[in-house]
Amino acid sequence: MGKLLDKINSPEDLRNLEVEQLKSLAGEIREFIVETVSKTGGHLASNLGVVEVTLALHYVFDFKKDKLLWDVGHQCYAHKIITDRKNEFNRIRQPEGPSGFPDPAESPYDQFAVGHAGTSIANAIGLALGQKQQGLDDKIVALVGDASIVNGASFEALNNLGLVKRQLLIVLNDNSMAIDTTQGAMAKYFSRVRLSQTYEDLRKTTSNILEHMPVFGKGVEEAIERIKKSIRMVLPASQMFESMNVPYFGPVDGYEIGSLIRLFEGLSHLNHPAILHIYTTKGKGFEPAEKNRPKFHSTGPFKINGEAIGKKTKRKSFTSAFGESLVELAKKDERIVALTSAMCDGTGLGEFREEFAQRFYDVGIAESAAVDIAAGLAKSGLRPVVAIYSTFLQRSFDQIAQEVALQKLPVVFCIDRAGVVGADGATHHGVMDVGFLRMMPNMILLAPADDVEMKSALAFALAQDAPVAIRYPKDFVPDKRYVRAASKRPFKLGRGVYVIRKKASKAVIVSYGSVLKEAMEAAGILSKEKIAVDVFNARFAEPVDGRLLSVLQKGKPIVTVEDHSVACGFGSAVLEKISSNLNGPVENRIIVLGSPRKFIMHSTRSYQLEQVGVSAEKIAQKVREILP
Amino acid sequence: MGKLLDKINSPEDLRNLEVEQLKSLAGEIREFIVETVSKTGGHLASNLGVVEVTLALHYVFDFKKDKLLWDVGHQCYAHKIITDRKNEFNRIRQPEGPSGFPDPAESPYDQFAVGHAGTSIANAIGLALGQKQQGLDDKIVALVGDASIVNGASFEALNNLGLVKRQLLIVLNDNSMAIDTTQGAMAKYFSRVRLSQTYEDLRKTTSNILEHMPVFGKGVEEAIERIKKSIRMVLPASQMFESMNVPYFGPVDGYEIGSLIRLFEGLSHLNHPAILHIYTTKGKGFEPAEKNRPKFHSTGPFKINGEAIGKKTKRKSFTSAFGESLVELAKKDERIVALTSAMCDGTGLGEFREEFAQRFYDVGIAESAAVDIAAGLAKSGLRPVVAIYSTFLQRSFDQIAQEVALQKLPVVFCIDRAGVVGADGATHHGVMDVGFLRMMPNMILLAPADDVEMKSALAFALAQDAPVAIRYPKDFVPDKRYVRAASKRPFKLGRGVYVIRKKASKAVIVSYGSVLKEAMEAAGILSKEKIAVDVFNARFAEPVDGRLLSVLQKGKPIVTVEDHSVACGFGSAVLEKISSNLNGPVENRIIVLGSPRKFIMHSTRSYQLEQVGVSAEKIAQKVREILP
Repeated sequence: MGKLLDKINSPEDLRNLEVEQLKSLAGEIREFIVETVSKTGGHLASNLGVVEVTLALHYVFDFKKDKLLWDVGHQCYAHKIITDRKNEFNRIRQPEGPSGFPDPAESPYDQFAVGHAGTSIANAIGLALGQKQQGLDDKIVALVGDASIVNGASFEALNNLGLVKRQLLIVLNDNSMAIDTTQGAMAKYFSRVRLSQTYEDLRKTTSNILEHMPVFGKGVEEAIERIKKSIRMVLPASQMFESMNVPYFGPVDGYEIGSLIRLFEGLSHLNHPAILHIYTTKGKGFEPAEKNRPKFHSTGPFKINGEAIGKKTKRKSFTSAFGESLVELAKKDERIVALTSAMCDGTGLGEFREEFAQRFYDVGIAESAAVDIAAGLAKSGLRPVVAIYSTFLQRSFDQIAQEVALQKLPVVFCIDRAGVVGADGATHHGVMDVGFLRMMPNMILLAPADDVEMKSALAFALAQDAPVAIRYPKDFVPDKRYVRAASKRPFKLGRGVYVIRKKASKAVIVSYGSVLKEAMEAAGILSKEKIAVDVFNARFAEPVDGRLLSVLQKGKPIVTVEDHSVACGFGSAVLEKISSNLNGPVENRIIVLGSPRKFIMHSTRSYQLEQVGVSAEKIAQKVREILP
Repeated sequence: MGKLLDKINSPEDLRNLEVEQLKSLAGEIREFIVETVSKTGGHLASNLGVVEVTLALHYVFDFKKDKLLWDVGHQCYAHKIITDRKNEFNRIRQPEGPSGFPDPAESPYDQFAVGHAGTSIANAIGLALGQKQQGLDDKIVALVGDASIVNGASFEALNNLGLVKRQLLIVLNDNSMAIDTTQGAMAKYFSRVRLSQTYEDLRKTTSNILEHMPVFGKGVEEAIERIKKSIRMVLPASQMFESMNVPYFGPVDGYEIGSLIRLFEGLSHLNHPAILHIYTTKGKGFEPAEKNRPKFHSTGPFKINGEAIGKKTKRKSFTSAFGESLVELAKKDERIVALTSAMCDGTGLGEFREEFAQRFYDVGIAESAAVDIAAGLAKSGLRPVVAIYSTFLQRSFDQIAQEVALQKLPVVFCIDRAGVVGADGATHHGVMDVGFLRMMPNMILLAPADDVEMKSALAFALAQDAPVAIRYPKDFVPDKRYVRAASKRPFKLGRGVYVIRKKASKAVIVSYGSVLKEAMEAAGILSKEKIAVDVFNARFAEPVDGRLLSVLQKGKPIVTVEDHSVACGFGSAVLEKISSNLNGPVENRIIVLGSPRKFIMHSTRSYQLEQVGVSAEKIAQKVREILP
């Protein structure tokens, strides 16, 4: 840690520093972030981009009282370092360490636990309206990236910004990047504006705003008019925001810390909402990250020269298994097209994009549009595959129900990051997809247990004349020892497969998806204790295999295992199935294992599985408990 | 039916008519719609507004091959009349009659079964990309209202319109109305443009576009440039669309049928997407509707002079019971604020808005923003009540999970139209809310059975330091004979109440919400057959009352009843609860009644309840079946 940073124990300490010192401090914080993330992994590039902005905001506002809202929130590291969490920062995203996203449970400086895009403006509007009604006047600032502001949720909020008749500052942090290059017309518009600006232009704009800035609370309104007028004359005002009637200032340089302070100071006195458009650079100050911004968006540990640490793993992830299988299938079927929403690499579509550029669509952070565009593609006769993380697919619930399921269109949803996700934590777990999808008529739900099954699951899905959802976790596929003959049997609608079947079995473990690994390990543990259990790989959550009924009728209890919430999950579907099929009372016993109704904090995925009770040992323990 | 309309059996027949005849035909269709809807009820005002536009579109395009996409779709009556459904039109929205919304099952002229806002542009993009990839060139037209185009889903689609490199026409049908006056900055922007235009301006714009219109396929691109240039000079081009790089034409008059035909004809030859902005008037040509557009947005039967038919019902709806209770509570608690998304009257908030104008927010068709603004309001210390129909709340799934449940904010969701909704049909049923909400940690789910319970449910909800969802149907509250002492007991977290309890009871009917009425009627039927059953009003779906376990332990079977899908519903929650609590095997028997996994078509609500098996007789029958 640097000399200056050593002395910063709260944002108040910033205010004792000169601008030059703040610049040095920014350098120290940047170094601290690079050093830490090189060990822990985490979101790097975006955090390096906003160090100066963060310092300037904390210098001007008092966020113990004032409210700072982060959009997505993965760029909050400098904020965490200067607010209460400097000493824990080296354990960021680790179990018991600080979250990689804002979290009110950690600090009063964090307002909302966030992780999805486009929420901060609407949250800020609500805060502002509430403050106004209660006669309060804490300042409110929302920091939104250019990739977030094109999300439908942001637009709906911007469209309603007129409700607010008091201060509310939106800082548009424009680094022309989402995880990947930002998509869509707005992005092109921003980059056109950006390209048309020289460094000199930015300085002129800044001084123009500053020159007309009102003196503390006096003549604010007239000053705004003057500022707006002079900027309009000098600069291409943002048509977009002007058409939405949002006072727009900028663009300005996001690294001139002295100017930023004066700008924030001035704008803090406005008595209505405004947008300040600032330019930053992802990865700022760390060359490897500036050069490869997608790679350093979210990274594992690395050497300080930017090289990845450790030998490249040869283990295959579910993500890459999906990507490979899709490319293979797409070679044989021209109807296959793929869509994603700003997560091409994250969902394993990189190779598909290269191979089939004309059949690949990235719509930016716009999950709702992705699904409705896929519906149109399916209607036209193609076979769209929509690859979106489980947690983000929640944004498309209504579109899947209405435009896909109701129309019975053959859209295949490939749901990555299904289940607990490890270090990203509560906002990123995908533990509700089975529930929200299985309520929809026509929808078929399945989950492969390994890469062999991934391929046949995908082939099966693409052959259906109905929507299909395939879920799989952020994890490696299990070792070959788990790839049994069972995996190789082709998928058949609503049929699971026995992976272990013993004559004297006392119970049946029924697993859904990747947790077959844990189920089989549990069976192994029990086997050593001379407790024979069957293991059934369900494959389908909808329709559920009706043969499970006969298991119960033979008097064997069932333990269902899934990496999903118990509420509405696969086990719940089994309960429903059994309940509706009973022709008479049977002594039945179904225990459902999965995530409880509570939010699971960040840590490692294996720790989280243990936590929610679907580790091998926990499964085995449950079997022991229920046996007579 | 008029003389001309008599002869129109398909859109081809239109093309034999002169423009003057088309005008007369529009008049006949308008009369036919008014006459029919005066008997059947239905969406009236919006349908009267677009008769000419519909005729002009069908005159120019061949929608057996070309694709016409309706946004929301409640304005498709003229379209239905001239495409295959003239003779069935008098049974619109009736059982077995045509749906009030587009439905591909009815006619090849309908592409998507729709009902929610903002979907048509993205669907059109998908269709266009799919057509292009397959070397097809059917024309594609999306008709979108000004209230729909401000929805986040529309914006995400507009932002991605650049993906399309071929013809795609968006007709922006601007009547400055959603169900109520459209909200937000865009709406203000549109109305500013609208007010600045005289009738003469509209004519000038039209002739300007027409003058530069390309000759069939020749020199299209240059012509576009000429048109755009000349319009830019004459008219305030739409900043909004320009900033999104969407070629924008208009505004023009939506009733000059001859000009509309020439405009559509010309624009159909463009080889890239474009927007044509047309002005129409809700209720056009029917004075009572022009004067009171909200009233005639969706209406019951009425006299041709506009008066409602029949004596005003004195029966209270769940909706008005909610509205009244909220006003009463808000008088005592200043922290209570209410939000809705373009359905103030539909959700019973009219009185609240009048009484507490400063505590009421309508955000337009922007369900996601509504919830995030509510989250901010709650965070600021207020008690927001969000009133949105169940089917539309699906748009807010992610916001409720992330910004409300994860933060454990005290937002109260008042979910109207929960359950089957009658005449609006498949796109409007609210049969998934229990499922998607009960997966979220911190969320409390309850449902009142009548107006007495509505009041105490709401009071209970507003007293919680956690999010609460209250669901109720589009129905009247039951007669007083159902209001028993049980209803008057205050709500207690996770506790249901016995409404009927008999010593010799053979089974327990456990109902959730308004279907307590059906449950009690079923008990009445069974009682006459000397079959004694208990009736338990569960009140809570989360947490489920644990005492149900002891019922099973006494050997009594349970029949759960709900107006929700069986998948993931209340009964499913009971199954999960019992499964997790069993300390040893019991002979248990739980039968879950609710909607099956299929889409329920439009008809009456009582018919639909019968259809899904939760009518009194069907419940009674199920009890008979399972008794030993």
